[in-house]
Amino acid sequence: MSLLVVGSVALDSVETPFGIKEEVLGGSATFFSTAASFFNPVQLVAVVGEDFPEAHVEFLRSRNVDLSGLVREKGRTFRWKGKYGWQLNEAQTLDTQLNVFQSFSPKLPEAYRNTPYVFLGNIHPQLQGQVLDQVKAPRLVAADTMNLWIQNTRAELLETLKRVNLLFVNDGEARQLTGEHNVVKAARAILGMGPSTVVIKRGEYGALLFEKEHVFACPAFPLEDVFDPTGAGDTFAGGFMGMVATAGRLDRDVLCRAMVMGSVMASFNVERFSLDRLRDLQTPELYARFNEFKRLTHFDEFPLTAQ
Amino acid sequence: MSLLVVGSVALDSVETPFGIKEEVLGGSATFFSTAASFFNPVQLVAVVGEDFPEAHVEFLRSRNVDLSGLVREKGRTFRWKGKYGWQLNEAQTLDTQLNVFQSFSPKLPEAYRNTPYVFLGNIHPQLQGQVLDQVKAPRLVAADTMNLWIQNTRAELLETLKRVNLLFVNDGEARQLTGEHNVVKAARAILGMGPSTVVIKRGEYGALLFEKEHVFACPAFPLEDVFDPTGAGDTFAGGFMGMVATAGRLDRDVLCRAMVMGSVMASFNVERFSLDRLRDLQTPELYARFNEFKRLTHFDEFPLTAQ
Repeated sequence: MSLLVVGSVALDSVETPFGIKEEVLGGSATFFSTAASFFNPVQLVAVVGEDFPEAHVEFLRSRNVDLSGLVREKGRTFRWKGKYGWQLNEAQTLDTQLNVFQSFSPKLPEAYRNTPYVFLGNIHPQLQGQVLDQVKAPRLVAADTMNLWIQNTRAELLETLKRVNLLFVNDGEARQLTGEHNVVKAARAILGMGPSTVVIKRGEYGALLFEKEHVFACPAFPLEDVFDPTGAGDTFAGGFMGMVATAGRLDRDVLCRAMVMGSVMASFNVERFSLDRLRDLQTPELYARFNEFKRLTHFDEFPLTAQ
Repeated sequence: MSLLVVGSVALDSVETPFGIKEEVLGGSATFFSTAASFFNPVQLVAVVGEDFPEAHVEFLRSRNVDLSGLVREKGRTFRWKGKYGWQLNEAQTLDTQLNVFQSFSPKLPEAYRNTPYVFLGNIHPQLQGQVLDQVKAPRLVAADTMNLWIQNTRAELLETLKRVNLLFVNDGEARQLTGEHNVVKAARAILGMGPSTVVIKRGEYGALLFEKEHVFACPAFPLEDVFDPTGAGDTFAGGFMGMVATAGRLDRDVLCRAMVMGSVMASFNVERFSLDRLRDLQTPELYARFNEFKRLTHFDEFPLTAQ
């Protein structure tokens, strides 16, 4: 079933210990929709400037992403510049140029308004709310956010959260949002803010899913080489939501599988710069690594004859 | 099958955000043998001073720990004083008094020398080697170490590692030992130093087991309240080794189950100060939490009809 994403489409400049890439394709909606497109048709809502390369538009189209909600405005495309040290878990932002994103006001094409699965990428919570005003009867609303909105637009974020079913945050954001240091307490506090499910991403340590009645833990795939963590969170969400939308159900089995597919997708994404790995990725590779996760995490029942 | 441990038996003074405990029972061999005793008879090699309370000796005896290798020397017992902040992952050591431990030279009672499973707790690598000189034909030698030995007695540690089958280290120690920042590369490097298995402990993020051909990831049990992380690593190793010794096999199934039981045991231990939680712990609670780990980590096969 179709899946809608609103977020950024950007040109990123990224430095890691393994190299430098200037003005490559990036943005939360780009990573998300590319990842989700392996499972499901995606409808994208975003804005780019006049300078946005047509080749990138063509790439998204080739991924079967509906671009009728991608607006091209006068001015320059949103740009982000960041740097990672050997601690690849967190980027140091060197520069952010909002450009056309500054006046972005998401408008959904008529064909998007009945879409059942919605992902609100990491943008101003008021814009996230504007998107929700335009969708008619979503089955699942998922959202991402970041420290900037938690700190500067807390009231608006809390309003939006009341309308969100599933929140993706990293552990630092969960602590900042709730004032709870312990990750389990932080998750419980978020479950009191609106969402019935919260996914706490912990970078190389994997992710935890919390619902009122259960918890699921998924490790990150152990990789010898992480080249560029940019987009890991959004590809995680894209794999996760793609799985949920294609299953068309929201039960525990589907959510656990979605966690694993999110980790699978993120693990491929960080193997190369920008979206380079996802461009080459073949569906059978996804399923193969999904099954490797089973071997990585499953163990036998305790023998009944145990003393 | 019986299991031998050499390490410290200590009096700990611990401060956490939840309280202060002075001169409580501690030490690597104490935590390890108490945890392992849920599964298997344990033989202990350690030294205490004249001031070591007889009640603690009685406690260990009540856990079915063979104390014929516990020597009481003139002088004071080994003492450790540490403090944890809200980041409960790592202790700040405030004071270490070696006392009788300074001149400790482990001697194995004759009845210990044929013991098939050996755990070398975190002591000077030369003393670890002395223990190995005295055991006849161990089936599995496991060891723990710490930053102090990696930095100050590297050559001796590398000698001992050649005789070790399984090394338990935390991620910081793995990096320090190998010079590799990436945890997978660090584990591979350790597998080149002697051990055929390495377990990398990551505190609240769980643990990873590496062998040449496979990897297993086990999360930490998500706890709302961690009162005192002291002994978490040693109770992990105790649960792990107890499971291995009682199984009497070293195949992948047993090692994965041992990882989970190590996590189970550590998760109970940190719920209260010192060994207070392990004193009360009942075997059915262990198996119940073991099975909760299954629900925490297992997911269904990917449906064969996936698109």
